[in-house]
Amino acid sequence: MQVFLPDGKALDLQNGATALDAASLIGPKLAEQAIGARANGKLWDLLTPLPEGAKLEILTTRKPAEAIDLMRHTLAHVMAQAILEVYGSKGFARDSIKMGVGPVIENGFYYDFDLPEPLKFEELEILENKMREIIARDLKLSRYEVTREQALAEFAGRDRYKTELIEGLPDNEPMTFYRQGSEADFTDLCRGPHIPRTGLIPPHFKLTATSGAYWRGSEKNPMLQRIYGVAFATAAELEKYLWQQEEAKKRDHRKLGKDMDLFTFSDEVGQGLPLWLPKGAFIRKKLEDYMYEKEQEYGYDYVISPHITKEALYHRSGHLPYYADGMYAPIEIEGENYYLKPMNCPHHHMIFAARPKSYRDLPARYAEFGTVYRFELSGALTGLARVRGFTQNDAHIYCAKSQVKEEFIKVIKLFEEVYKDFGISDYWFRLSLPDFENNPEKFGEPGPNWDESIAAIRAALEETGAQFVEGIGEATFYGPKLDVQLRTVVGKEESIATNQLDFIVPSRFDLEFTNANGEKETPVVIHRAIMGSFDRFFAFYLEHTAGNFPVWLAPEQARIITISDRHLDYAKQLEAQMKQQKLRVTVDSSSERMQAKIRDAEIAKVPFILIVGDKEILENAVSVREHGKGDRGKVSTTSLMSEIHERVEKRI
Amino acid sequence: MQVFLPDGKALDLQNGATALDAASLIGPKLAEQAIGARANGKLWDLLTPLPEGAKLEILTTRKPAEAIDLMRHTLAHVMAQAILEVYGSKGFARDSIKMGVGPVIENGFYYDFDLPEPLKFEELEILENKMREIIARDLKLSRYEVTREQALAEFAGRDRYKTELIEGLPDNEPMTFYRQGSEADFTDLCRGPHIPRTGLIPPHFKLTATSGAYWRGSEKNPMLQRIYGVAFATAAELEKYLWQQEEAKKRDHRKLGKDMDLFTFSDEVGQGLPLWLPKGAFIRKKLEDYMYEKEQEYGYDYVISPHITKEALYHRSGHLPYYADGMYAPIEIEGENYYLKPMNCPHHHMIFAARPKSYRDLPARYAEFGTVYRFELSGALTGLARVRGFTQNDAHIYCAKSQVKEEFIKVIKLFEEVYKDFGISDYWFRLSLPDFENNPEKFGEPGPNWDESIAAIRAALEETGAQFVEGIGEATFYGPKLDVQLRTVVGKEESIATNQLDFIVPSRFDLEFTNANGEKETPVVIHRAIMGSFDRFFAFYLEHTAGNFPVWLAPEQARIITISDRHLDYAKQLEAQMKQQKLRVTVDSSSERMQAKIRDAEIAKVPFILIVGDKEILENAVSVREHGKGDRGKVSTTSLMSEIHERVEKRI
Repeated sequence: MQVFLPDGKALDLQNGATALDAASLIGPKLAEQAIGARANGKLWDLLTPLPEGAKLEILTTRKPAEAIDLMRHTLAHVMAQAILEVYGSKGFARDSIKMGVGPVIENGFYYDFDLPEPLKFEELEILENKMREIIARDLKLSRYEVTREQALAEFAGRDRYKTELIEGLPDNEPMTFYRQGSEADFTDLCRGPHIPRTGLIPPHFKLTATSGAYWRGSEKNPMLQRIYGVAFATAAELEKYLWQQEEAKKRDHRKLGKDMDLFTFSDEVGQGLPLWLPKGAFIRKKLEDYMYEKEQEYGYDYVISPHITKEALYHRSGHLPYYADGMYAPIEIEGENYYLKPMNCPHHHMIFAARPKSYRDLPARYAEFGTVYRFELSGALTGLARVRGFTQNDAHIYCAKSQVKEEFIKVIKLFEEVYKDFGISDYWFRLSLPDFENNPEKFGEPGPNWDESIAAIRAALEETGAQFVEGIGEATFYGPKLDVQLRTVVGKEESIATNQLDFIVPSRFDLEFTNANGEKETPVVIHRAIMGSFDRFFAFYLEHTAGNFPVWLAPEQARIITISDRHLDYAKQLEAQMKQQKLRVTVDSSSERMQAKIRDAEIAKVPFILIVGDKEILENAVSVREHGKGDRGKVSTTSLMSEIHERVEKRI
Repeated sequence: MQVFLPDGKALDLQNGATALDAASLIGPKLAEQAIGARANGKLWDLLTPLPEGAKLEILTTRKPAEAIDLMRHTLAHVMAQAILEVYGSKGFARDSIKMGVGPVIENGFYYDFDLPEPLKFEELEILENKMREIIARDLKLSRYEVTREQALAEFAGRDRYKTELIEGLPDNEPMTFYRQGSEADFTDLCRGPHIPRTGLIPPHFKLTATSGAYWRGSEKNPMLQRIYGVAFATAAELEKYLWQQEEAKKRDHRKLGKDMDLFTFSDEVGQGLPLWLPKGAFIRKKLEDYMYEKEQEYGYDYVISPHITKEALYHRSGHLPYYADGMYAPIEIEGENYYLKPMNCPHHHMIFAARPKSYRDLPARYAEFGTVYRFELSGALTGLARVRGFTQNDAHIYCAKSQVKEEFIKVIKLFEEVYKDFGISDYWFRLSLPDFENNPEKFGEPGPNWDESIAAIRAALEETGAQFVEGIGEATFYGPKLDVQLRTVVGKEESIATNQLDFIVPSRFDLEFTNANGEKETPVVIHRAIMGSFDRFFAFYLEHTAGNFPVWLAPEQARIITISDRHLDYAKQLEAQMKQQKLRVTVDSSSERMQAKIRDAEIAKVPFILIVGDKEILENAVSVREHGKGDRGKVSTTSLMSEIHERVEKRI
């Protein structure tokens, strides 16, 4: 048989040859360095026969990251062997340990065990050390095929989980086992792929957690103990991952939202329906005011549409019946069905159509803080990031085709300004294109609508110099999109916002304007959301800042703390003076001691702690302690107030 | 028998004596001036026997307004006689005219006729003149009782409506007829009361309209022609009423909303669900921002709650099942019922309860622009004044009982400030009290909760010097209220807002705070809405101003119009300069002539029209035309901009 190398060269091999055979044929040095392969783009190991005609790429020790999932998979097996050895030395019989599945997951692996006694969290270190021992033994992995009968015989009477797994596999396909070392070491029913020797596994792994997991995910089955590990090709990656995990925990917006009294949920109100507490609502209002002001500058007109609407409108827009799963059940009013709106666009179309339009009225940019309701299973709800009703920073731009490029330039600029003001820099645009070849049902035929609009958006991206990637097949059925992707502080990639060009729906709503020649013309629509939804953006931003809100957003900008009670009058005067200047300030007049008050203010992440005592009063000053930066010594009250005003003004 | 005069004196009368008999007994002068009476507070005429033991008050020509409803009733009969005479002179037989009912209504009366040919609107004047003729004949009214048989005989075969009416009356009660003049004039089946002579009817009446009205309101019955009239005791009242009607038509917020592009409705979206167009949404946002700022000053904390909520919460609050008719049908989500919220209070209670509270946290004042949904029949919907979903300027104040007075003072002050800023002066407070005697089921027992809270509100009213009336029986079951009543520019009294003290519901929600002694205490709640709902306030304010919004609210504050095209550059520069200063200004660069542009700007009610030509450019000035005030001549652009800024600042 033949396989093909990356340079296109064909390689003649015996039937059943492996990637190791291929590497050896290319050269002994490659065979020595080989740790895995990719066959037809799919991760492959050195032990498995190659498919006829495969495009083959050999992975080597020079780029271990490329084969990291092979290593993670073998680590799961190494962990299983380590469990046997650890429980063996505890005196448990081999057959008292049963095993479920042990797959690779993002960043690592897990394995589900039925153990004679649970592994304690503290024992993870013992287990990990045992794994490092096994790795150091540099056990060689082998792969062999068995029949169903052989496989069943292997586990008969001693492991019901493996037996069930085998019974669930198709009858006529060969099954494979992977073994590391000798029969005495560890053998598992496994599809692979794996690294060829345990010694090739880099030491940058860590067991992170254990949890209960029902066998096959069903609560009718026994609960197994799942042990999680993470593994990376380099120490730096592992460290970064562990730091991010720690940070993610600290920054979890649900935790911060609770600790900082920003929002809450109530069983009596319902899941996925947030109640915004005063401080959270304050910041959200600031976000809304900020966007309103920006959008006023950019020529948007704010509109307001109702939250429920007749069935007919969503039939016209095409949301019904296709999007019905994403909508809640209808409410009957006087014999007609009304829905909680899942989208604002049909309403904005009605507003556009409410008055005749001429080319002089275009672009018409309608913005709304539009609350929409989309069905989510209760299990999928996540704090403010995934809720059942949320408020979009929504807008629809109605323009002539000739205005698309200019409007996209404005949208991109607005994005960049907003994200800059919020200190978000790790983001990029994705130009989402159709895939006519693989999905003609969705995208229809190529044609001038597609060509011209893609060209306009591309030109806008180039003109603004915005960083962007392309995503074939990511467009909507009604036109190309410009998505905004970002990487969070803790390393997760998220799609935060989207801008969609729509050249299909406007005609469904009979939208039109009179062009300069006096003819009727259908506008195109740009669906656009800068912050996405305020709820989700708030969740993101809370994690982004770890709750250390800049002074322009902080509900409490400064807290005055007195050295002793006799300074309280001065503190109150200062408070009044600062409030006069529209600063958000409080005095901590509780009976606690000064150090405790300072600690409380730090926990509350108040940007400025202002300490006043005899000296400060004499000099008309305060001792400033800036959150996250520490002591700044005495500052005159006047210059402090100007500083705060300036920072509010500049949003820093 | 005896009756009692206003001074308490008893008057001995024959059984069956009338108020005229009583007046004659008191003195001949009173009998001469008498036009009607009040018996036990109810309007009574001089012809009807008085009830035994009645409290009697004689109404005289000196205060004709007190007897105006007697006159209106007689006017309905006079109109019926006039119809007979007018149609008689047209040659129609008496029996070809049939009559329904002819009651008194607010400001006037109507009568429903089945006529051989419809009366044209232009003929109202002829009819009215005929009425004045009949009044001038000074026909005497008489009243007599008849049996059912006699009554039926009177109309048998010639008036099916009267026959049906008689058949619908109770069997054993005597029926009464009223006759004016002789049998040849006009006699009607009627309960009264009436004025004793047509000559006593003042000339200040007018027939205003005709319309179709189904007999007994059912579309299965024939349609009759209803003729409306209004009548007042004085010319001034009639004039004012007619002016108000004209104004009301011009100011109708539905008309202005359409003409000024403020809001719209769409059949596809649904009745009672407004779509706010850019200009309307702009003003509404200004109202919201204004209230937000004011409420910040007054120490309110803004919160946000979801629009749907679980059934259980409204059971706890007591809205379900009692208020179910005012709510929409539930939405089922994962097996549980959710409702569109009709009230925000339960949510605010949940927010209060989300964190432990101490006396130091009180008063907690939670404000929300809370959208609520209340069932309205489609027939009851009226523009923005009565909709199915609206946004309240809502707040709930949680405080200790000892803080009620102080909080009510603040609420009253806030009201007064806001209403002053909006130029609303014709309003007053109504202290709504319980009526233990007549409605013990609703109000329960008197007790310290009632006494103390009423005393606190009364003290707050007295301390602020606010104008107020009292309304016995107008309280809620959970406490006294302070309603805000106003009279609109067109004379209608409306209840625009309400403040309710609630000492019952907080304990249903287990609300509590730790008082200064370390004990748990239940707070009281003040439910409060300054603008009521933004939707309804907007409708009211639109009619109040006739759409002439003050410059701080106007979406377009100034429009620049050039004398000729060569001044356009200067106009654009000026526009940019003013926009730089955050003024909302446009240039009319259309191809219309200057006079047409000025007319357009006047129709759009733009506060300032700025005309620029050669002279203005030379002097760096504009010729100002202020809406509603006319030409102001040349004004330097600098001083104009300061003037606008100052007026925005002062909200004038």
